[in-house]
Amino acid sequence: MSPITPRTPPGTMELLPRRQVAFQRMLDTIRRGYERFGFMPVETPVFELSDVLLTKSGGETEKQVYFVQSTGAMQQGHKPEMALRFDLTVPLARYVAEHERDLAFPFRRYQIQRVYRGERAQRGRFREFYQCDIDVIGKDTLPLQYDAEIPAVIHHVFSELGFGGFTINVNNRKILLGLLDGLGIPEPERRVLVLREIDKLDKLDRDKVRANLTGEALAVPGEAADRILDLIAERSDNDGTLARLAGMGIDSPLFLQGVDELTQVIRGLRAFGVPDGAVRINLAIARGLDYYTGTVYETFLNDHPGIGSVCSGGRYENLASHYTKSTLPGVGISIGATRLFYQLMEAGLIQDGGAVADVLVTQLDPALSMDYFRIATDLRAAGLNTEIQFEGGKIAKQLKYADRAGIPLAVLMGTDEKARGSATVKHLLRGEQMEVPLGELGARIRELLGRAG
Amino acid sequence: MSPITPRTPPGTMELLPRRQVAFQRMLDTIRRGYERFGFMPVETPVFELSDVLLTKSGGETEKQVYFVQSTGAMQQGHKPEMALRFDLTVPLARYVAEHERDLAFPFRRYQIQRVYRGERAQRGRFREFYQCDIDVIGKDTLPLQYDAEIPAVIHHVFSELGFGGFTINVNNRKILLGLLDGLGIPEPERRVLVLREIDKLDKLDRDKVRANLTGEALAVPGEAADRILDLIAERSDNDGTLARLAGMGIDSPLFLQGVDELTQVIRGLRAFGVPDGAVRINLAIARGLDYYTGTVYETFLNDHPGIGSVCSGGRYENLASHYTKSTLPGVGISIGATRLFYQLMEAGLIQDGGAVADVLVTQLDPALSMDYFRIATDLRAAGLNTEIQFEGGKIAKQLKYADRAGIPLAVLMGTDEKARGSATVKHLLRGEQMEVPLGELGARIRELLGRAG
Repeated sequence: MSPITPRTPPGTMELLPRRQVAFQRMLDTIRRGYERFGFMPVETPVFELSDVLLTKSGGETEKQVYFVQSTGAMQQGHKPEMALRFDLTVPLARYVAEHERDLAFPFRRYQIQRVYRGERAQRGRFREFYQCDIDVIGKDTLPLQYDAEIPAVIHHVFSELGFGGFTINVNNRKILLGLLDGLGIPEPERRVLVLREIDKLDKLDRDKVRANLTGEALAVPGEAADRILDLIAERSDNDGTLARLAGMGIDSPLFLQGVDELTQVIRGLRAFGVPDGAVRINLAIARGLDYYTGTVYETFLNDHPGIGSVCSGGRYENLASHYTKSTLPGVGISIGATRLFYQLMEAGLIQDGGAVADVLVTQLDPALSMDYFRIATDLRAAGLNTEIQFEGGKIAKQLKYADRAGIPLAVLMGTDEKARGSATVKHLLRGEQMEVPLGELGARIRELLGRAG
Repeated sequence: MSPITPRTPPGTMELLPRRQVAFQRMLDTIRRGYERFGFMPVETPVFELSDVLLTKSGGETEKQVYFVQSTGAMQQGHKPEMALRFDLTVPLARYVAEHERDLAFPFRRYQIQRVYRGERAQRGRFREFYQCDIDVIGKDTLPLQYDAEIPAVIHHVFSELGFGGFTINVNNRKILLGLLDGLGIPEPERRVLVLREIDKLDKLDRDKVRANLTGEALAVPGEAADRILDLIAERSDNDGTLARLAGMGIDSPLFLQGVDELTQVIRGLRAFGVPDGAVRINLAIARGLDYYTGTVYETFLNDHPGIGSVCSGGRYENLASHYTKSTLPGVGISIGATRLFYQLMEAGLIQDGGAVADVLVTQLDPALSMDYFRIATDLRAAGLNTEIQFEGGKIAKQLKYADRAGIPLAVLMGTDEKARGSATVKHLLRGEQMEVPLGELGARIRELLGRAG
């Protein structure tokens, strides 16, 4: 029988074990950060019923959906009853609406799971990728303070991740929408299209965007377009930007509300101890989605702007209108962990993780194997992740295995050491070794690893 | 617009947040246990290419497979290119074969992910469920000592899980196969069928199984059937069973090898410190799958035999014959975490977890909200998971929220306390409260939670 060539499906990120350790550490750091702010875990099934998932009119999203069908249903020619989630927001909406009576509001949840999109296969595009989301959902209302707490979460998590400097860009959609209102563009749909155009400023230059704004389709008057683009180009510090906004003389209530909210958010996150330098008001961040209605966030790594936003989100007015008549406003963010990890790997910034094992018990003398079992059990009881080498063979080969696997320490015991009731601990990185009484082995190894008590 | 009824897809286990905390704790405990023995993490994509996944002849498994197809491919009438994994063993085989050159052998990996089966929807049957697997894979050979280490892992993990007493049942398939050989049933296929029949002894009584064995299809001579069934009914301690096996006078080499291996495994796991009472040689455990070729394991909770085996596995001769010409023997186990958790819930043994947050900073006086932000930031910096209540409203309502959410402590500060540079800490379970200087808040709360330093 000729073997089938083993292949990972395209568009997925599969890692070798030591790389997986590094990725796992990143997810653990994000989770710990979210928990530090009291968010509760939620997991939802990988698939949803198709009619529940695909409530919105077709369009771009639906084309990218993966449908799921059991063999039996397929043979009977049924339409697929289920589909893989394409984000964590729709499952959250379904979850909150379904369990509304059992949840305490404001409901704070984090969710770290994979989502699926039928993207065209191409380098750096993923069909399966992790999203790490937090959201706070209110019932009827949700105080603005949460909008200030979210950047504090971002700041905490990215400080812990240690990928270097980063800047949290903050804006409020009401400012631009209100400005358009004030400049004589009151139609909501037209305003959303204008915002989408403005969102392109990171890809197109100003002249091109101006031409699109003043073109036939959007018909923004030239003077208005200039005022918008001048405002967006604003590059003073946060207080300067807020002062300029306050002094613009725009009397749209929406605009004024947006400026007030943004001011409160900036003030709040100072109280949360987020340094001014880590946050920047950026009026160009429009997040051209109708979904967001107030504060919006995008986060960039200072040394890697090319990666784009590594953590985005914002405030929305109503999470689950498709599933419930309750009004459920919320604010949240998402970290696309797979894409971020991939980009950092490409930039050479990801080191392989070490082994899970702290120490390898070698097989110096096969006749002593039961002793090695006992030593391993003692080390495990002392809280040390311990692997035993059963393969035997030359000790140099065993030590090379440990080294290659990233295990920092090895324990060796021959008949001489056994007679003395001791074993040798070898520090593979430092090349040092020492003989240690068996009863002290766990404690000494913990010391060598720099672990307390 | 009339809302769509939000429904979780049938056959999945979706939990409320506090229940999810309990489930998460269980998965974390399993993971920590696996890491204690030096297993490395691996994750594979949820789907595999159909031709890679479905290498075996159709049959029962294939009927239960979920196929995955993007909208585009479906419209073009293509056959589904991908399918959801139905276990973690086939993806492991694919992974090891694909990455063979980059892995160090013996390769020890754990994998904790969900798998999918198109089961008929019915209470307690899951279409999506977690499996928590470990395997050790050798190249060409794999020493028998690993077979002894695996029950040590099971013992460690189930001790940590704290679901009460449990018994690890151990057997070796070579013993029964060799016995059949010695009793004049040499045909491998017939022997496998006999083993499958013997596996039914937990559901059928002895007479019925004897009738099936001696029936037309299997044609086991009556005397041989009695010897087999007598042996299986053996209920002495492990040493007694080993002595009886050694004294049976069966001269099949396979039988003798099986007895020798089982003896070594029992001896080895004593050296690993696994108490005799937690392990039982059970010759009735046949695991009627051709896949297993030597040691097999099944684990039962002593107080809940009805749940069936909660952790099963064994030794196999060749992991990935479909994908590579290398010989890759291995030994492994799997915990079906979703099913186990569900059964323990049904038995009333699962308590909801507490909140993720250790402490709630209340909103006693909205004018002090910036102070509350600062307090929360200090507590978080002290390593405490901290939630702030922004909703305000009556303090009794805020404390009730904390209580319902399972948050053990609350911080309250009014203008009087602020003037004194202090805040009140309320222990919601004990009903006690005390005033604490702001600078000592983190340390005092850590003490109240019983955390070191």
